[in-house]
Amino acid sequence: SSTSSTGDMKEQIDEMDGLDEFGEAVNQGKQIYMVSDGTGWTAEHSVNAALGQFENCLVDRGCPINTHLFSGVEDTDRLLEIMKQAAMEGALVLYTLADPNMADAAKQACQLWGVPSTDILGPTTEAIAMHLGVAPSGIPRGAPGRKAQLSEDYFRRIEAIDFTIKQDDGAQPQNLNRAHIVLVGVSRTGKTPLSIYLAQKGYKVANVPIVMGVDLPRSLFEINQKKIFGLTINPAVLHAIRKARAKTLGFHGGMRSNYSEMDHVRSELEHANKIFAQNPSWPVIEVTGKAIEETAAVIVRMYHDKKQKCLMPGISKRY
Amino acid sequence: SSTSSTGDMKEQIDEMDGLDEFGEAVNQGKQIYMVSDGTGWTAEHSVNAALGQFENCLVDRGCPINTHLFSGVEDTDRLLEIMKQAAMEGALVLYTLADPNMADAAKQACQLWGVPSTDILGPTTEAIAMHLGVAPSGIPRGAPGRKAQLSEDYFRRIEAIDFTIKQDDGAQPQNLNRAHIVLVGVSRTGKTPLSIYLAQKGYKVANVPIVMGVDLPRSLFEINQKKIFGLTINPAVLHAIRKARAKTLGFHGGMRSNYSEMDHVRSELEHANKIFAQNPSWPVIEVTGKAIEETAAVIVRMYHDKKQKCLMPGISKRY
Ligand SMILES: Nc1ncnc2c1ncn2[C@@H]1O[C@H](COP(=O)(O)O)[C@@H](O)[C@H]1O
Ligand SMILES: Nc1ncnc2c1ncn2[C@@H]1O[C@H](COP(=O)(O)O)[C@@H](O)[C@H]1O
Ligand SMILES: [Mg+2]
Ligand SMILES: [Mg+2]
Repeated sequence: SSTSSTGDMKEQIDEMDGLDEFGEAVNQGKQIYMVSDGTGWTAEHSVNAALGQFENCLVDRGCPINTHLFSGVEDTDRLLEIMKQAAMEGALVLYTLADPNMADAAKQACQLWGVPSTDILGPTTEAIAMHLGVAPSGIPRGAPGRKAQLSEDYFRRIEAIDFTIKQDDGAQPQNLNRAHIVLVGVSRTGKTPLSIYLAQKGYKVANVPIVMGVDLPRSLFEINQKKIFGLTINPAVLHAIRKARAKTLGFHGGMRSNYSEMDHVRSELEHANKIFAQNPSWPVIEVTGKAIEETAAVIVRMYHDKKQKCLMPGISKRY
Repeated sequence: SSTSSTGDMKEQIDEMDGLDEFGEAVNQGKQIYMVSDGTGWTAEHSVNAALGQFENCLVDRGCPINTHLFSGVEDTDRLLEIMKQAAMEGALVLYTLADPNMADAAKQACQLWGVPSTDILGPTTEAIAMHLGVAPSGIPRGAPGRKAQLSEDYFRRIEAIDFTIKQDDGAQPQNLNRAHIVLVGVSRTGKTPLSIYLAQKGYKVANVPIVMGVDLPRSLFEINQKKIFGLTINPAVLHAIRKARAKTLGFHGGMRSNYSEMDHVRSELEHANKIFAQNPSWPVIEVTGKAIEETAAVIVRMYHDKKQKCLMPGISKRY
């Protein structure tokens, strides 16, 4: 049936050929369409990573790109409608479609209409199928009847998120012993977003701010010290981040004015470094220039290395 | 230089051939190695999605799989060490390596040692390169000198996370007007993890619990009603979730005992449905059997559709 639908669409696209130039004119720059029968997050994640390879060209929008995410594309009609639009706009189509008929329809439509396209996940799924000696189900995640099970892993992640939110910004220091990971650093080193990122991976995280003139909670020094990670950052960068932050919060004049002043930033970081020097078992992670997920990767790697102490450190999971 | 390194490794792996059976015996089931010069999250995300296609075979560990994530693999030595281990364990290797020399080294080592392997991101990056007419930089994200810029997008996401944490569980109803998205539902419909998931995508989210005998905040009815989404769930599933929850929290006997009782669950959901019926402009989303990221995808789609009102709804972004 995918073939006949593609045939129908061939006629429709021919009718619309006159719109081509209009379609081009509407959007400046290059278009990338991401199409998924699921959430589209895999395609989005992959495209974001791949676009990192074209940063120079993206800076200052020297070569502007627009991405368009189409999620929950579960039938051929909607699929071909999107492909048609892609043809009109001269877009690149990157798709993840579990149903082989849908994936075929996408491929054929793109060939027919001269749309460049790539199946993002197909090769990975096929490699796993070969490795397991089992054929993929071909059933998309949202298909009727399929239910995400309430697995142990699901509950673990939910609990980690609840815990982590409650422990933000030094709250409830009596619970630090229940955390998997404890982050320590001055304001705006990314403790909160980092905690949340790690919580979504299933780690219970607490973060404790270093503030001059305020003692760190006693419990921090009583728990397993292997859980604790210090965060540090370049003073000039922290200064810039705090300036931006102060602007957003609308600080003016007197109150907390020294929060974003360079001298204050510098002495606060020196204070933090002194604490780190006194606690040499805490690894200190330099976050300058790192995205949240990059710092998260470093911490998760160290966390597992410490636990495993094996020859080939890595993060292992069972399915 | 990658070729000569591969040559060296050939000798080393030959020396270790005797370990093959040992390697097999250590780990039950099939091994999947994920190797990245970056965080490894792209590989992990892709493999998780692909493994969804083998759920039947994974249930009850009928065909057990172990994944191993190796992130920050930045030099050929470490790369080949991992490949060697993969050869010994009969693992499948799935990699993302931005440096073409590293990707070549991976490919060659795998061919030489008979390790099945797939480049997860390469085809996507190449498709984008062709589309843009620009060659990929070949520089991995963690490379010295490369710095994640503190972009507007970065600050937007950090602010969204800070906002969302503060608005959890009905806190600060006076700020509901500042949210992009407001989630309303009874306890354990996933409001908190969903809020956090959306916050990481840059949306400011507030969630408001529906509790029998407690009035919803007046401000909820004064803000733009298009922001509001109701969550509903099958009573039996909610009952099961709450039972699991009560166990974790260690509820016993008296206090909040009715929280997880079926009658209470049912009347609470009826109460919620009455509220939803009184507010027909709130879309009501059925979360039963949906993973957090699936519900998030539905909400993000509706959020953008409402805003755009265009012929081809989808989520667009500029780079
Ligand atoms: N749990 C799952 N079960 C079956 N298919 C899945 C699962 N998760 C993701 N997929 C498929 O993997 C691709 C990417 O998913 P998504 O990231 O939701 O767009 C889509 O084709 C989905 O249908
Ligand atoms: N911002 C970026 N700049 C350059 N390369 C990137 C960027 N983000 C991801 N990559 C590359 O994309 C692949 C997947 O990244 P990751 O998800 O961090 O493992 C790796 O080869 C990274 O080096
Ligand atoms: Mg914070
Ligand atoms: Mg909650």
